[in-house]
Amino acid sequence: MKFFNVKTVMETLDLIANEYQPIRQPIEVPLIEALGMVNAFDIYSDEQVPHFSRSTVDGFAVRAMDTYGASESLPAFLSITGKVDMGRAATMKLREGQAQAIPTGGMVPEGADGVVMIEHVEELGDLLNVYRQIAPGENIIRAGDDVQSGEKVLAAGRKLRPQELGVLAAIGKTTVWVYPRPIVGILSTGDEIVPCEKQTLAAGEIRDINSMTVGAAAMQAGAEVVYGGIVADELDSFAIRAKELYDKVDFLILSGGSSVGTRDYSVQVLESLGSPGILVHGVSIKPGKPTILAKANGKPVMGLPGHPASALIIFHLFAGPIIEKLQGRKHESTDKRLTAKLSRNVPSAVGRTDYVRVGLEEREDGLWAVPVFGKSGLITTLVDSDGMVEIPASKEGILEGEFVKVHMFY
Amino acid sequence: MKFFNVKTVMETLDLIANEYQPIRQPIEVPLIEALGMVNAFDIYSDEQVPHFSRSTVDGFAVRAMDTYGASESLPAFLSITGKVDMGRAATMKLREGQAQAIPTGGMVPEGADGVVMIEHVEELGDLLNVYRQIAPGENIIRAGDDVQSGEKVLAAGRKLRPQELGVLAAIGKTTVWVYPRPIVGILSTGDEIVPCEKQTLAAGEIRDINSMTVGAAAMQAGAEVVYGGIVADELDSFAIRAKELYDKVDFLILSGGSSVGTRDYSVQVLESLGSPGILVHGVSIKPGKPTILAKANGKPVMGLPGHPASALIIFHLFAGPIIEKLQGRKHESTDKRLTAKLSRNVPSAVGRTDYVRVGLEEREDGLWAVPVFGKSGLITTLVDSDGMVEIPASKEGILEGEFVKVHMFY
Repeated sequence: MKFFNVKTVMETLDLIANEYQPIRQPIEVPLIEALGMVNAFDIYSDEQVPHFSRSTVDGFAVRAMDTYGASESLPAFLSITGKVDMGRAATMKLREGQAQAIPTGGMVPEGADGVVMIEHVEELGDLLNVYRQIAPGENIIRAGDDVQSGEKVLAAGRKLRPQELGVLAAIGKTTVWVYPRPIVGILSTGDEIVPCEKQTLAAGEIRDINSMTVGAAAMQAGAEVVYGGIVADELDSFAIRAKELYDKVDFLILSGGSSVGTRDYSVQVLESLGSPGILVHGVSIKPGKPTILAKANGKPVMGLPGHPASALIIFHLFAGPIIEKLQGRKHESTDKRLTAKLSRNVPSAVGRTDYVRVGLEEREDGLWAVPVFGKSGLITTLVDSDGMVEIPASKEGILEGEFVKVHMFY
Repeated sequence: MKFFNVKTVMETLDLIANEYQPIRQPIEVPLIEALGMVNAFDIYSDEQVPHFSRSTVDGFAVRAMDTYGASESLPAFLSITGKVDMGRAATMKLREGQAQAIPTGGMVPEGADGVVMIEHVEELGDLLNVYRQIAPGENIIRAGDDVQSGEKVLAAGRKLRPQELGVLAAIGKTTVWVYPRPIVGILSTGDEIVPCEKQTLAAGEIRDINSMTVGAAAMQAGAEVVYGGIVADELDSFAIRAKELYDKVDFLILSGGSSVGTRDYSVQVLESLGSPGILVHGVSIKPGKPTILAKANGKPVMGLPGHPASALIIFHLFAGPIIEKLQGRKHESTDKRLTAKLSRNVPSAVGRTDYVRVGLEEREDGLWAVPVFGKSGLITTLVDSDGMVEIPASKEGILEGEFVKVHMFY
């Protein structure tokens, strides 16, 4: 097969970063439904968090200067003039020489600038012996320490984790604007492919593994999936079915067939869907060279290699980032990478980026990446793998014991 | 506050590994719904994958020995006797001196033991010039290479990723037995805690951040969440509300309050729910010492520290693994760990495990973990963090440039 626009892995990733944007308009959803989605706009706080100064310990609110010089042998003597109630305003002002009992999270009364821990005092009726000095601000979170009023708490384009939702909850937001989950369509191609439900296979047939693996991986990446089924190696019906599915989705993935016919038809079909058409035809990568990437009237369209293992590796490398771009994610994620030492020498060809499947082993001296052997067509090699290691195009291989980056499979 | 059964982090994790098991019976679900769940039983294949020998390239099926010695200058001459159709049985036997055209994925005919790539031959009518010799088995995946009939394809207790679902699809399974998602109940406690929806806070009040963050983190870990709302610092109503929620869920988490009263009540309430009661009361960890772990008639029950950041860190360390145990997961996951170099010296106390929040930075010489400063009560410190670094109890700190393990926040 001839490839007419072969790119490197880096060129392909750069192109993905530049070519694709969210297709649909942002929507407003309740916070808890936004988990894993990406906020569409910068978010500012209208209030400060906390909105009052709080104690971080159980103890006594005091003026720090009243404790200066206090020690086990020479305590400071203060008079207890009150008690702060949890969840209530501290209404009584604290004056020189005074102390007020305060619980963790209680409001620090006006006049106090620190809290002495309960472990460092002794109560004698209304008198308090303080056995340790504190600095101003000690054991206090001041009003606005967490969030200032008017502060930008979240920049647009961030994936919302539990802590981002927590900050929004803290400032009183109950909803957030996010990009809708992209809808990914998957169409399997090839005369040899039959539905997974078919129990008894005829000679020459294989089940449609890629719809299952690629669909599941797309869901993990935050997309909704529409399955287009299987289409035979026949140009007209392939083109019609692809167009039907393209019209329904934000991102069309063609997958499954591996014959020359299917691959040629994929190119024609991808070109026919809209302009500018094919951007990448072939990536200098192993496995996965016959990858095709196109853009049709703003929508990404992709042709995955047919081997199940290659298809899933290419999905992780390129389709995952495309889904992130469609979600409006702005910052490249480091959340799927991990560093380990490679357990053996792995040779490679210069000018081609190789991806080696690895299992991870925790040993005394750290995490090791152990290459998983097997032909790229075998799906079981992926079951035995925790992730994949990149051997850059500039290298002839990687030596045993070298640190490598592992792109994790989830 | 007095802790009466303080454990180390390792002791607590060992206890979690040994004390908790799935509570509910396995259920059978369609493959695609099982993504991220854990298979309950060992799974064996009734068939072999592929169930016929397949070509991995476009080319000609041959007997390898007929190509021995072939080269650019001295090709082997074979006669083309047929063509294998995609998705069909190869019905014609191949004999000495013969070749049959075959597509990638096509069935290798009887008598052939290898495939010559299209790039290494020249067709001259019915004659084929072969310019390279191949070894037996070259460019072929043999029947059963991926999965043997009778082979165990998945051991019980594995989290189902796209590739595990792919293998099940490949062997014709359309459903899988998994443990149901555990139901986690969250009850917030504390007189100062008000619902997140409350727009104007009175002095001393703070919003219920932990229900949001802990709930979202539980969903990420694979659980369903039932929110129990907020209960005040009053023993009787606390005990009643906790019992009500406990009865509905597989795992009860108490969270939110931080006053002495709440903490004392938590201990009493956790003890009252069932035997054996409290297993851990205090962990030698920073932040998060006031962690309580209990077991009530087989169900895990946990008291999280009140500070939002501490609560989420403790959730990641202990509640996440408990949810994995309730899902039937058998192998410890390495999927949330990553190695990086620490960007500065961080001191620590011997005998206590410290968790330092870090952001990750990709630099020329690899991945660096940069500590995020801020008091443990501040939720914004978590927003700035990609994960946390453990400083083991045996160490006085970690030096700049040392490799550290980062437990990622997702």
